[in-house]
Formats: sequence, C-alpha cells, structure tokens
Amino acid sequence: MILAAGMGSRLYADTNTPKPLVKVLGLSLAERVVCTLQAANVRRFVVTLGHEAETVGAHFTGIALRRGVTVECVEAGDWKLGNGASALAARGLTGEGPFFLVMSDHLFDPGIARALAGDAPAPGEVCLAVDRDRAGIFDLADVTRVGVTDGRITEIDKSLDQWDAVDTGVMLCTPGLFEGLERAAAKDRHGLSDGLGELAREGRAGTVDVTGHPWLDVDTPRSLREAERRLMHEMGGKTSDGPVSRHLNRPISRWLTRYLVRTPLTPDQVSVISWVMSTIAAGLLAVGGYPALAAGGVMAQLASIVDGCDGEIARLKGLQSDFGGWFDAILDRYADAFLLFGLMWHAFASTGARLSLAVGFAAIVGSFINSYTADKYDWLMARKLQGSPYLRLGRDVRVFTIFLGALFNLPLLTLGVIALATNAEVVRRILVFRRARAD
Amino acid sequence: MILAAGMGSRLYADTNTPKPLVKVLGLSLAERVVCTLQAANVRRFVVTLGHEAETVGAHFTGIALRRGVTVECVEAGDWKLGNGASALAARGLTGEGPFFLVMSDHLFDPGIARALAGDAPAPGEVCLAVDRDRAGIFDLADVTRVGVTDGRITEIDKSLDQWDAVDTGVMLCTPGLFEGLERAAAKDRHGLSDGLGELAREGRAGTVDVTGHPWLDVDTPRSLREAERRLMHEMGGKTSDGPVSRHLNRPISRWLTRYLVRTPLTPDQVSVISWVMSTIAAGLLAVGGYPALAAGGVMAQLASIVDGCDGEIARLKGLQSDFGGWFDAILDRYADAFLLFGLMWHAFASTGARLSLAVGFAAIVGSFINSYTADKYDWLMARKLQGSPYLRLGRDVRVFTIFLGALFNLPLLTLGVIALATNAEVVRRILVFRRARAD
Repeated sequence: MILAAGMGSRLYADTNTPKPLVKVLGLSLAERVVCTLQAANVRRFVVTLGHEAETVGAHFTGIALRRGVTVECVEAGDWKLGNGASALAARGLTGEGPFFLVMSDHLFDPGIARALAGDAPAPGEVCLAVDRDRAGIFDLADVTRVGVTDGRITEIDKSLDQWDAVDTGVMLCTPGLFEGLERAAAKDRHGLSDGLGELAREGRAGTVDVTGHPWLDVDTPRSLREAERRLMHEMGGKTSDGPVSRHLNRPISRWLTRYLVRTPLTPDQVSVISWVMSTIAAGLLAVGGYPALAAGGVMAQLASIVDGCDGEIARLKGLQSDFGGWFDAILDRYADAFLLFGLMWHAFASTGARLSLAVGFAAIVGSFINSYTADKYDWLMARKLQGSPYLRLGRDVRVFTIFLGALFNLPLLTLGVIALATNAEVVRRILVFRRARAD
Repeated sequence: MILAAGMGSRLYADTNTPKPLVKVLGLSLAERVVCTLQAANVRRFVVTLGHEAETVGAHFTGIALRRGVTVECVEAGDWKLGNGASALAARGLTGEGPFFLVMSDHLFDPGIARALAGDAPAPGEVCLAVDRDRAGIFDLADVTRVGVTDGRITEIDKSLDQWDAVDTGVMLCTPGLFEGLERAAAKDRHGLSDGLGELAREGRAGTVDVTGHPWLDVDTPRSLREAERRLMHEMGGKTSDGPVSRHLNRPISRWLTRYLVRTPLTPDQVSVISWVMSTIAAGLLAVGGYPALAAGGVMAQLASIVDGCDGEIARLKGLQSDFGGWFDAILDRYADAFLLFGLMWHAFASTGARLSLAVGFAAIVGSFINSYTADKYDWLMARKLQGSPYLRLGRDVRVFTIFLGALFNLPLLTLGVIALATNAEVVRRILVFRRARAD
C-alpha cells in the first residue's frame, strides 16, 4: 500500500505539483517508490488518494503501464484528518497476507524492504523498519521517534523525549493494522503513528533495525536537493570503466546527465545521438586538412563522453535493459570502425602510402577483437579482483588516443599505436586466459 | 570400481593391446569409461588389474593426471578365475557408501549412471542397470540375460531360456556385493553374475530399467567398429551450424576428424592450423592475378572445413573447454578479417578504385558485428525455437561466398555482397531483439 493522499504543502508551495508527482532526477517520487518495491518483488500496489486525487491517480495508472505492475487506486474521503485515515480507506483491499505500507514521498533502499520481508510479522501484528543512527538522519527535527524495547515498539510519536530509533516510513503490515487505526480514530486521533501506538500498547508492533540502509523523507526543497545528490552519488561509475572514463569522461557525463535526465530522451536515443556524433566526427577526420582533423578528434571525444550518459540515465530512471546495453555496444562498434576508417582515409589520401591501409586495417581489427573479448575478460577480472579496478584498455582509451592524434595531426602514428596496442592486448588476454585455465 | 583385469582375448588377438587400452577414436576404452562416470560426478576410482597389470595401471595413472580424478589400482591375484574374483580384490577399498561397478570395456551413456544414482540401492543391496529392448542390442548372442520380477533380479545367466532384460554391465553397489561374491566363490563360481545371483536369491538385487540409453560391450573387432560408428553419429553437428556448414563443411570435417582424432593433435593446435591456412589464403587473395585469387578462395574454404575439426576432436576426446572455444573464436575473427582484407587489397590494386576500400571496410565491419552479436542471437533463437535449425548467416556462409567470388574472379562484387548482407543482418537482429523485448 502506498499512501499518496497528503498535500505535501512545503513542497507544493515550491513546485505547484502534487507531491507524489514531484520529479527527482527525471522520475517522480511515486515512480521511484514503485521501482524500489518492484526490486523487492512487489507486483501489486494499492494507492490511497486524496489531494488532487484525479491527477495523482492518473499518474499511478501511467506507472502501472510503464512498469508492468498492477495498481489499484482508492480515494480516501477524509484524507485531511491524517495519514491514518487515508490508510483506513484501503481496508479490505490488501488481502489476508502481509503487505508493505510505504509513503509516496519516502525514498528508500530496496534493502529495507528485503530486510522486512525476511522477518515478517505474525498474524495481526505489524513490523516497522527503524533507523538507530541519529547522526546519519537528514532532518532529525522532523522525524517520528520510536521507543523500542526487545525489538518491540513501546512508544511512537514526533515529540518523545526519550527514544531509541526513528521511523523510516517503511513497514510490513497485516490487516491487524486496521484494528489499531480504528481504535485510534475512535479517540479522534488519525495519524498512522497513532494506530501503531495502539498496537504497540498490546505488544503487536515489532521493529526491524535497518540502520545503514539509506532512506529519505522528501518533504522540503532542501530534502529534494539532498535526494538528487544521493541518487547521483549512488549511481557511481561502472567497475569496468577504464582510466579515461574514470578521470575524464565520467565526471563530465554525470554533469550532463543531471540535465538530460530531466528531458524525455530515452537511453536508446542518447546512444543514437552519441553514434551520430561519432559518425560526423569520422567524416571530419576523413575529409582532409588539419582543422577538420582536429575538429573530428574533438567531436569523437565529445561523442565518447555522451556515450556514458545512456547508461547513467537508464540507471537513474530505472530503465536498464539487456537490449539497451546490447544496442549501445553495437553502435559503439560501428562508431569505433568509422573513426578509425576516417583516420585511415585521411592518412592514405594525404600520403598515398598503402602502408596506411594496412596499419588502419590492423587498428580496426585489433579494436574489434578487444571489444569481442571484453566481456569474458571483464568477467574473469571481476572474479579475480572482486571489484577493485584493473588496467583496462577499452574504448575510452582508444577514442582518447584518436582525439590526441587528431589534435596533434598525427593520423598514421595514431593508427600505428592503436594497431600495436590493441593487438598486443588481445595476445595478452589469450595468455591471461590460458593461465587462468591452468589454475 | 572399474574392472580392468580381463584379457579381452578376442580383441587382443587383433590389436595386441590390453583391452582397456584399446583406442576408440583416439581415446582408450578405459579413458572413455572414466569420462562417462566423471560426467555423472564420480571423482574417485578403484581399478582392479590382472592381465598386463603394470601397463594397464600406468595407463590409468595417466588418465588420473589428465582428468584430475583419483585412481587407486589394486592387483587381483586370481583374476583368471573370473571377473567376480577380480571384484573381490577391491573389497575394503570402496568405502561404506554406494559405488558404481563398471567394466573397462563397456561404453555407456552417462544417463545410465545418472538413472542408477537416482534410485540408489538400500544398504547391503545392489542395483543393476538393465535394457529391455532386445531388438536394439548389438550382440544378443553374447549378453548376460536377466530374469526380473517386480524390479528385482530373479535369475541372471548367459544361458537363460526365459528372460526379461539384459545386463548392461553398469551397476550401483553397496559393500553387500562382496558377500554375494564370497558365497559364490565358496561354491567355486567366480563370475560377477554368480555373485549377483546369490544376492538375487535373497531379494537383494534390484534393477533400474535404462532401455533407450545407449551402451555397448566392446569385445570384438566388429563391436569396436560399431563403437566408432556410434560415437561419430552421436557427435552430430552443432545446432548453430549454418547451411554451408551442415551440408558441405560438416560432412567433410567429420570424415577428416576420424583421422585427425587418432593423432596427438590437440583441438587448439587444429584451430591454429586452420588459422594459418586462412592467413595463407588471404595472402593468395591479395597477391594479384586470377590463378592466385582462385587458389586463395579454395584455400579459404578448406580452412573453413578444417575449422570444424577442432570442436569435433574436442568432443570425441572429452577435451571441450571454455578456453578452446574462445581461442578458436578469436582466431576465426582474425582469419575473417585477413580474408576480406586480401580480397579488398586485390580489388583495389587491380582497379585503383577507392570505392573498393569503402566496400571492403563495410564488409569487414559487418562480418565482425555479425560475430559480435552471434552469441546473443543464437541464445535467443535456441530459446525460441528449442533446438530446431534456423536461418543463420554465419562464418560458413561468408567464407563460402569468398570462395565462390574468388573462383569466379569477382572480388569487388563479393565484397559488396558480403557488406550488404552482413550489415543488413545486423539491422535485422536489432529488430528481432527489439521485438523479443516487447514480448
């Protein structure tokens, strides 16, 4: 169950958008919450609506279509009373088994949901994920405080003086929750924590300690910026990033991605844009004359940077796919070949030396076979080194070499260096594998 | 336990080699039996020796080193009495748990061992794999006949008039076997089936019906030829074989493999030989003049045929390895590129047209990306079509096109056809994958 009825006034003033629809790096809070629970194998969602119910409901319907999940919306008539009243509106829709109850404005790590699922509550009980690390909590003044004894909630309220942990906003419930909410409502208390407090008094409210797993209540412009900062940070690079990628391309592509992710561009479209840039670069390399050559080199390097954005956008928008990575790899192979062919054409046209054909050919073949063997090499290295970085002569290094060679007007030398380095790398990889087999 | 004490007089007369050492397509009977049990997860072997014990023991030591298994040899002093006496010599070496008992001269499908392992005998009992299909048995006059009632052996002897099934020579025993053998020995009966008969009388000998799984008792020159015929037949082709491979290359490479498998050539060495042939072919294509061009085309096609032998030899000798297939694929990519470069060089040198460079380049790139996408395409097709053949524009077709083009002296047209076909195939594969993602 996702509670999406509240107004989120502090953000609404700023964005004029219902809170579940507020976008964090290109994806609404609501969609991020659905993605996170999907990663914890949740496939069916019940959403309670209130403020701007129609808009928010339509947004969830869109999410359901895009993500292939089931979403059932229910309007909470008296959502204004409190989030407990909203939750009560979903009574009877959650089935008999345990269900997650989350807020549409809390981002959290799927590990929190998995930790809860690994320690499910007994029938009639609820189980709340709590965080014990006060220093790590983003907005300590605004959290709900929880008293915990022997893993059970004793008290829960924003105003507790003595407290042990903080409510992360993620819980695994049974229909017993609704009994607590009704009992609280009878006392005219309509918060979710009031309902939990009722259950806690009977010892029916457990906790799971998820300290260390990140989570964030996004309810102010400041916390929105913090959410974006964290997402960019978590995204990181790829362990298979080569040195040029790590130190040059990745920082720039990440900066670029912050903007691209807010556009409707899909990762596949960004792959195509990078490929078109490479093709233009290849044309510039081939066309003859130094200024064009240098421009081609710069363009090739830019294309290589943009080529990092597709994967980043996919990860930020939860759009990673097997096809996307494969499609990008094919375009990269064509781009590689075009660039080297452009350089070869330039060298041949300007000198007339047939040697440049042979050298260009060797560079194209070597580059290809480097890519051809990369998957297996990366797999072996990942197994051997367990995630620590390793020397990787990959596309980032090849394109950077072309960039430098074009800039310094040394097309034939550049081809020669790439031909030697890539083919030597193939031989090295064969030897590495032979040794690995013997181990 | 492998019984390897007998003399195998009928084969010995012909080959002058102790029977376990007789080679069937490059691998001794003993090594084939070890390979088969290895495929059923057996790692430790006890071997009883008799006739030429030293030679046979040394051979098994070699197998142990090559295959990474443990082999313990024991000499059966009175092996001449019968194979039951040989088996008794291994008493105390088999441990307490169940163990397979096999003959060193019976080839069998690993499925037989797996069927036995799935239906292990109770403590003190034995379980024999039996075949009920009289029509399918190779040498019906020479088999041991078994009477079976309710899955239990009632009688077992070569001379039974009434019988239900045939002893395949593979059984899963417990140390109870040795009691049966001793009881038979006390009556001066020293055959393995005598021991089984003793246990059968107490209802301690079960059966597992393995009808349909192939097995063969290799004890005559005729059965040796049958074993070779069956191995060649079982090897088959690969499901990813393209049309040229299936109808032209594979039949010839299989014929060639029958000879090569008897030499000490390793699969990797055969890969290198094929690559050297391709390189020579590329040189002939490049060198200019029609006779050289045609010779290069023929050589390329021959290399493509030899390229099928490495995998066949690996499968026949139980030497399949991840590295071998990968190494062969890399050499193939270089060979592909060399051949197309040779053809391009020829076309460019004879016409001076720069168009031939662009077309040659497109052919090289397209071929590469076909190989680059082949794994994923084959995987998708295997999943979709479940083993039935499909249109596959692969290396076999490309090399055959080069062969025809060189023969008819049409280098530029050949490059153009390959460039078009391979790049169109890449586009087609991208579309196939996009559709598969949507499913």
